[in-house]
Amino acid sequence: MRSKFIVIEGLEGAGKTTARNLVIETLQAHGVTDLVFTREPGGTVLAEKLRSLVLDIKSVGDETITERAEVLLFYAARVQLVETVIKPALARGACVIGDRHDLSTQAYQGGGRGIDADMLATLRQAVLGDFAPDLTLYLDVTPEVGLKRARARGELDRIEQESLDFFNRTRARYLALAASTPSIKTIDATRSLEQVSQDIRDTVVRWMEAQG
Amino acid sequence: MRSKFIVIEGLEGAGKTTARNLVIETLQAHGVTDLVFTREPGGTVLAEKLRSLVLDIKSVGDETITERAEVLLFYAARVQLVETVIKPALARGACVIGDRHDLSTQAYQGGGRGIDADMLATLRQAVLGDFAPDLTLYLDVTPEVGLKRARARGELDRIEQESLDFFNRTRARYLALAASTPSIKTIDATRSLEQVSQDIRDTVVRWMEAQG
Repeated sequence: MRSKFIVIEGLEGAGKTTARNLVIETLQAHGVTDLVFTREPGGTVLAEKLRSLVLDIKSVGDETITERAEVLLFYAARVQLVETVIKPALARGACVIGDRHDLSTQAYQGGGRGIDADMLATLRQAVLGDFAPDLTLYLDVTPEVGLKRARARGELDRIEQESLDFFNRTRARYLALAASTPSIKTIDATRSLEQVSQDIRDTVVRWMEAQG
Repeated sequence: MRSKFIVIEGLEGAGKTTARNLVIETLQAHGVTDLVFTREPGGTVLAEKLRSLVLDIKSVGDETITERAEVLLFYAARVQLVETVIKPALARGACVIGDRHDLSTQAYQGGGRGIDADMLATLRQAVLGDFAPDLTLYLDVTPEVGLKRARARGELDRIEQESLDFFNRTRARYLALAASTPSIKTIDATRSLEQVSQDIRDTVVRWMEAQG
């Protein structure tokens, strides 16, 4: 299997890092060795600078980043990553595993912040065209479970400090988009590590087999 | 006269700073004292950081900023400035004088770089809606004249180091948009300082009188 873009999505504390490791192991066990990893926002020098600006509001003084500016910065970082890293990797035959991609913007900014979904869809189409992941694993947890895990890990960044309502709206948008998009597979990530891990492996293997 | 947004546009070396001073003097001579100045990209803490990123490519290492990322950063800086500075100033009754605004993106990125005009129009509408300057003074110079003046001032930034063809395409787009937009007034800025200054004063006075 070559040239596939696999994305891992979910709320903070959903277990994205664990899932990534399982995806890597599963791909490697099936002979896929040319793997490229990305994280969003970030993954290029420019994009990491934008990530710092967006995630750490303190770096711009007491100024509040407007919702629309935030969305545009996420898309600037994303298009930079897609054009300079993801597309070249796919073109040479590599598989790209992404920690978050466009679905995060739809869920966090669209669902969580309530930014007009039509505006986001317009932006997405203008900037990315029809480029989209081949497979997205959405790790579904309640915000209560996710935030408890994230807090146990240490400090929370600006977005992670949003209210529970924000995360509930974000999760609802994730679930709605997953339900209407065949390439998004939902994994119930509130279960035990063993059960979640088995589900991820099975899902990836079934998907690979369907690729032929 | 209150709550007007006046923008000064043109190629590097067109004389935008001189024009701004003339606009200020003309407005003050007509009793307009609450003035706010902006420059783009920039004008807020976030926007100035983005300006540095875009104008000084060295700050992101050897990475080249993709055209689409550049456009998105300009729009992120612009929407931040519009929402946090320009609109609040207009709301309290001030006049805002802008050194560049959206027309620069249409001319430089659309004309100069050849980015699809429909994509730019879509972005503009999605981000800014119908917000637009009340008056734009477009200072028209040939690239040869403008660059000669800009070089005499000192070092050129990344965008100022583009080819003559780039600036010819940028100028052509400026002229085309000025011809089709009643709120854009074209000033022939290749003439003597005295002639250009008189034209700017006359244009602003005529426009103010037309506002009633």
